This record gives sequence, structure tokens and C-alpha cells, in this order.
Amino acid sequence: MSPKEIAQKASQAMYDADVASKSLGITIDEIGPGYAKLSMPVRDDMLNGLKICHGGIMFTLADSTFAFACNSYNQSTVAASCEISFLEAVPGGSVLTAIAEEKHKRGRSGIYDVTVVDQDGRTVALFRGKSRTVKGEVVPGLTSEEESK
Amino acid sequence: MSPKEIAQKASQAMYDADVASKSLGITIDEIGPGYAKLSMPVRDDMLNGLKICHGGIMFTLADSTFAFACNSYNQSTVAASCEISFLEAVPGGSVLTAIAEEKHKRGRSGIYDVTVVDQDGRTVALFRGKSRTVKGEVVPGLTSEEESK
Amino acid sequence: MSPKEIAQKASQAMYDADVASKSLGITIDEIGPGYAKLSMPVRDDMLNGLKICHGGIMFTLADSTFAFACNSYNQSTVAASCEISFLEAVPGGSVLTAIAEEKHKRGRSGIYDVTVVDQDGRTVALFRGKSRTVKGEVVPGLTSEEESK
Amino acid sequence: MSPKEIAQKASQAMYDADVASKSLGITIDEIGPGYAKLSMPVRDDMLNGLKICHGGIMFTLADSTFAFACNSYNQSTVAASCEISFLEAVPGGSVLTAIAEEKHKRGRSGIYDVTVVDQDGRTVALFRGKSRTVKGEVVPGLTSEEESK
Repeated sequence: MSPKEIAQKASQAMYDADVASKSLGITIDEIGPGYAKLSMPVRDDMLNGLKICHGGIMFTLADSTFAFACNSYNQSTVAASCEISFLEAVPGGSVLTAIAEEKHKRGRSGIYDVTVVDQDGRTVALFRGKSRTVKGEVVPGLTSEEESK
Repeated sequence: MSPKEIAQKASQAMYDADVASKSLGITIDEIGPGYAKLSMPVRDDMLNGLKICHGGIMFTLADSTFAFACNSYNQSTVAASCEISFLEAVPGGSVLTAIAEEKHKRGRSGIYDVTVVDQDGRTVALFRGKSRTVKGEVVPGLTSEEESK
Repeated sequence: MSPKEIAQKASQAMYDADVASKSLGITIDEIGPGYAKLSMPVRDDMLNGLKICHGGIMFTLADSTFAFACNSYNQSTVAASCEISFLEAVPGGSVLTAIAEEKHKRGRSGIYDVTVVDQDGRTVALFRGKSRTVKGEVVPGLTSEEESK
Repeated sequence: MSPKEIAQKASQAMYDADVASKSLGITIDEIGPGYAKLSMPVRDDMLNGLKICHGGIMFTLADSTFAFACNSYNQSTVAASCEISFLEAVPGGSVLTAIAEEKHKRGRSGIYDVTVVDQDGRTVALFRGKSRTVKGEVVPGLTSEEESK
């Protein structure tokens, strides 16, 4: 199985079980090894008191995208810490897309950068996530322990 | 009006308009100048593929708590950037409480630390938020420009 | 041996070998379990082009203080990542003091907050460091593997 | 004057006055608008108790590189906050190179990513800096207020 196929099978299994991401209307646009692209329309129930998208909801999109990227090798991986900078206010009705790219991976540690853009390509948030590989596989038996390292 | 009363009126107005926080079942436990304590039960639709609370949802609780603390002077204030460390997995059915405390405030900039604990007092996440005061008041006319500085 | 004595012996051994901290004139004021307080006078060769203390030198003081705090159990520990906020410009001739306190410690991971103040008690920087315990002891044989956990 | 010439004149003026960077043996390899590349040999007096380069000294190289990149428009700019991840231990005798690239710039705020590599091209640290433009020019009169925005 190619690294891209492994990434796609792992992400599909994760997505099927991820009630939180599905409840927010997050969808997967593209997956590859160490890479993920997800989208989310900004609904009215995602707005805060200023009538703009709650920062936590933008973070959730970025965090999900990070999770799909760092689990793309089918080795179970969790977020250790994340940092987000909010650059632009996002009104209701926007469609956000987050792209996660691997900056570094060594042993059990990884660093992923996520860029969140709106439907006009405007960068609205920058996110950096640190991951930690734990025991187990996303899809058990899909990859040998060797391959997934 | 005392600083505590100002903080309470500002937070009530924010909460009334904050559809996102209310949709997640977040409630306000306590408010004071530079201080906020909010709670949220972890519902099934907040769980990710690992059947634990999605990191983004925990972040959203911390971020809302930060927002209520930094707007407690009735001067409109937004999040510039936030960092979160995830310390413990949180199963469905937990009740999370977040406490925001002001670490620094000077001019238009502030730094707030938020601790997220579960129903057993176990610390599950640590969050640090940077705020930026913008134009306008949370409740117009409640505070004079002088007072709110 | 008490936890405080262990912390003091570990820090003395670290300090003796730490050419970088000594070259910068950093001295140890106080050490305890998960705690350290270090000082540094701001010399002329620590100033940047704006004639204020280089941010990197302030970071170095905070980072050393963090290192002494997280190695205070005599279990070798390294910095994984650090974040610093610069709050005030620091002129030459100032004396900076950094205080590191443990916010969280579980298994091999720790989080430490460092506050940097000047001679007037003004907070000039806030620092948060993440640590990772590695193999080995700071002073071999000082603590049993059991004790140092 | 071209943006690249402005960047070079601004960086030369900064470097001439930056005693801290010069004391550490930091040199400028390349400068452009929103871009800087600096190098530093790791001397024996930069080593900590583990006989590896002190994290604070690596941070200082990254921070200086960030400063030259964000001042390259000749508009005085300071660091607000910085985050660094330490990826590899760096022995004495290494030569480190830091490359700063602009990720975002809007109004008075900027975000810069700095990658620190050793002489073999191995990435040893990743750094993200947030900048804030203040009043004044690096080289007074070099750029009009218009140009430097």
C-alpha cells in the first residue's frame, strides 16, 4: 500500500469515529503523508458575542487538520500542545479551509504548521501543533510497526 | 459601580450574545476584574475518534474563559494568540471547569493564564492567552473611557 | 537527603559545568524542588542596536532558571520548547532576577513558568518552558531511581 | 532605492550598533525584505552543563535573525513574543545558520518563522516570532513614512 493510500485509509477511519469534527460540519478535502486539508462552513451557532467566528471553533478546525496530518502514517498520535494566532475576524457564512504541513518529525515527536484561509484565500489564522506518537495504530493491522515509523 | 459589578454586567452582555459558547453548554460560574471561571459538561458530540474530548472543544472552553476575563473591564478586547498544552485525556461525561487569571496588563496588551480542571480537580490543560484591547465598550456607556483603562 | 538538599547539590553540579551561564554573569539565588531563582546584571555587551538588553540574553537567563528548576530532582531533564513574551525594554545597568515555578509534572513531561523582574520588581518578561526528562542523573548516585521520579 | 537595498542599509546600521550579536560572533549572510540569514559558530563559552550549546544562545541567534528580518523595511520593529522548539543537541564547534522568513504582516503586526540548521543542514531548532512595529525608522530619513509601511 502506498503512503498516500495508508494516509487515506487512516483518515477515513478517524473521520468516521470523530463525532466532534462531523458535528461542526468539517469535511476532508485532501490527505497525504504528513499532510491534510480540511474545510468548514462558519454557521450561525459558531459566532461569539462580537458576531464573528469563535476563536475556539477556528482552533478546532486547525486542530482536526493537524490531527489528520500527524496520524497519516497510521501510527496513533496525539496533540501535546498547540499555538494559534488570530489574524482576521471571520464573519458568519464564511467557508474556512485549513492546510496542515509537517515541519519536523523525529522519533515520537512532530511539529506541524497549519494555515487557515477563508473562501477568498485570505489567511485568517496561523497554527503550530506539537505531536507525540503513542502506542497503537489508527487502523490496526494496516501497517507493520516497521512501516509506520 | 464597583469593578466586580462592571465585570458582571459586561460578561452577562457578552454571554447573552455568544451563541457559540451557549451551543456548547458553557456556563459562567464566577466573574471579577481580570478573572473568570466557566464550566462545560463534555457531551458525546464533543468526542473525537479516540472517544475523548476533542482538543478544540477544550480549547474553546479555555478561550471563552479568557475572553470573559479580559473583557471584564468593559473595554472591548480580542484574542491575539493562544497556546494550550493538553495534559490528560478527558472522557465523555466529564465536567470541565476553566479558571482565567490575569498575569499582566499594560496599555492595550494583556496576558492571561487559564487552568482547565475536571470534576475531580485534576488539571487537564494549561492555556496562555495574549489579548489586545480594541475600540469600543462591551456595554456602551457603562464605564467612562477613564475608568475602563 | 531532603528534596531541598538534593535540589541544591544538583544545581551546584550543573552550575559548575555551565560555562554559558557563568560567562553571562548569571548567579543562583535560591533553589528548591521544582523551583529556582537566578540573577544577572545587564552588561554593556548584552545590549542590542536599540541600546536595550537583547531579548535573547533575557531568554537565556529565563531558560537557565527553567533548567535549574526542572533538574532539581536530580533526574536529567532537557528543554523541549519555550515561549517568551517581552513586556518592557530593559536598559544597561539593570539587574534582572528570574523565578521559575513548576506548573505541572507528570511522567517525563513538565511545564514551568518563569517570571523575569528588574531591580524595581517590575515584570519585564514572562516565559513558559516545557521539559522532558531523559536518561541519567545530574549527580550520579545522589538519588535512587525511585526517589528521583 | 530598491526594497533589497533598504533592507541591507537598515541591517547594516542595526548590526553596527548591536553589541550583543557581535559579542556572540553572529554575522549576517544575507538580507532582503522580510528575510534574513545569519550565522554563528558555537564557541566553548556557549556550552551548558551538558556540554551542548545553551538553548538561550541558540534562541539569541534565532531572535537576532528575526529582528533583522522584521526591521528590513526600515520601520522600527520590536519582538513581542517568541516560541522555540529545540530539536537536536548541538555540540561545541558546530556552525549554526538561522533563516527568517515572513509568514504574515498586516498593519503593525508580523509573524516570522526562523529555522536553525547546523553545518550539515540538519534542522536543530524551529522558532516563531511575533513582531510589533513602533515609532521611528532604523535609519532616519532612508525611507518615507509611506514607503516603509
